Amino acid sequence: MTDTPSLDFWFDFASTYSYPAAMRIAPLAQARGVAVRWRPFLLGPIFKAQGWDNSPFNLYPAKGRYMWRDLERICATLALPFAQPSPFPQNSLLAARVALVGLAQGWGEDFCRAIYRAEFGEGRNIAEPATVASVLASVGQDAEDPIRQAQADPIKAALRAQTEEAQRLGIFGAPSFTTGGELFWGNDRLEAALDWARRQAA
Amino acid sequence: MTDTPSLDFWFDFASTYSYPAAMRIAPLAQARGVAVRWRPFLLGPIFKAQGWDNSPFNLYPAKGRYMWRDLERICATLALPFAQPSPFPQNSLLAARVALVGLAQGWGEDFCRAIYRAEFGEGRNIAEPATVASVLASVGQDAEDPIRQAQADPIKAALRAQTEEAQRLGIFGAPSFTTGGELFWGNDRLEAALDWARRQAA
Repeated sequence: MTDTPSLDFWFDFASTYSYPAAMRIAPLAQARGVAVRWRPFLLGPIFKAQGWDNSPFNLYPAKGRYMWRDLERICATLALPFAQPSPFPQNSLLAARVALVGLAQGWGEDFCRAIYRAEFGEGRNIAEPATVASVLASVGQDAEDPIRQAQADPIKAALRAQTEEAQRLGIFGAPSFTTGGELFWGNDRLEAALDWARRQAA
Repeated sequence: MTDTPSLDFWFDFASTYSYPAAMRIAPLAQARGVAVRWRPFLLGPIFKAQGWDNSPFNLYPAKGRYMWRDLERICATLALPFAQPSPFPQNSLLAARVALVGLAQGWGEDFCRAIYRAEFGEGRNIAEPATVASVLASVGQDAEDPIRQAQADPIKAALRAQTEEAQRLGIFGAPSFTTGGELFWGNDRLEAALDWARRQAA
């Protein structure tokens, strides 16, 4: 086969382990020749369908305490800045919609990384339009037009459709990776997912 | 410092991802000069304290479907046999008690690996005394004496104490690894935990 290996990267800006995954995926994929499609979605509706009205890291405190320490260690290993944001989880709706605008215009990946860095590297609140606007500025975008588009019907519908597709694919957490009918869940599965994509196309 | 690096390996025979961890830990620890203490415990009381009366992989079907496929892929990568046991989860009480007998007598690690292989490599039911007896025979032990000791008060109390200690340490799943005041959770954290143990002792 001569197909270019490809993989879908599913993430929610509220998801903690999506931060290191978003920061790692581009060079790892490039080294393997795998094309990555960034797919923001919302975990909220998927968690609700599992009976959770909050992050499992808040619902199960032992797991939550562990996760923050584990994420701190992972960031130290990767030399990524780390700060626990408050509140947690953050409302990721506006950032996800703006990401969809940016991904269609070529600046989406930079914006996604910058949002994650603001949230989990600097502890800023990405639910606030002012934070999203300053992140847009940091990647060279004027804020007004993307935020206006993000609040219009086509982008709202696109994010809903993407979330429904994630659910249909069996996605139950983030980050997730899909390739060749396989689902991989978790920052720690990123390399295995990319390797799978490459093997399927070989 | 001249301390020998050491790590506690916490596992429940009902835990799926503890299977690859149990099969991998000895050579990885040896290569790093880390001494491993095998600590069987029971997840049941810890899950109950979180409000679960069953495995989360049964309570959350999307997560359960993913886990079985993920475990199958991991076993294929490691060239480990894989078979989904029925019922799941299995009652691991007798096997955990026999493991405590064996760990005090020098044959415990071989027994633990053989139990995991019977359960997740061959799909056998480790809740049955006949399975435990045949696993004991496979590691060169007579069944009668260990099973009798496993059902006497000192071993029963030791397993209860070990489970309570796991809970005090903040353990909420298996496999878990503790070293130098740090907790690591999951087969995919084994290398990081061993590296931490080695660094702490350096």
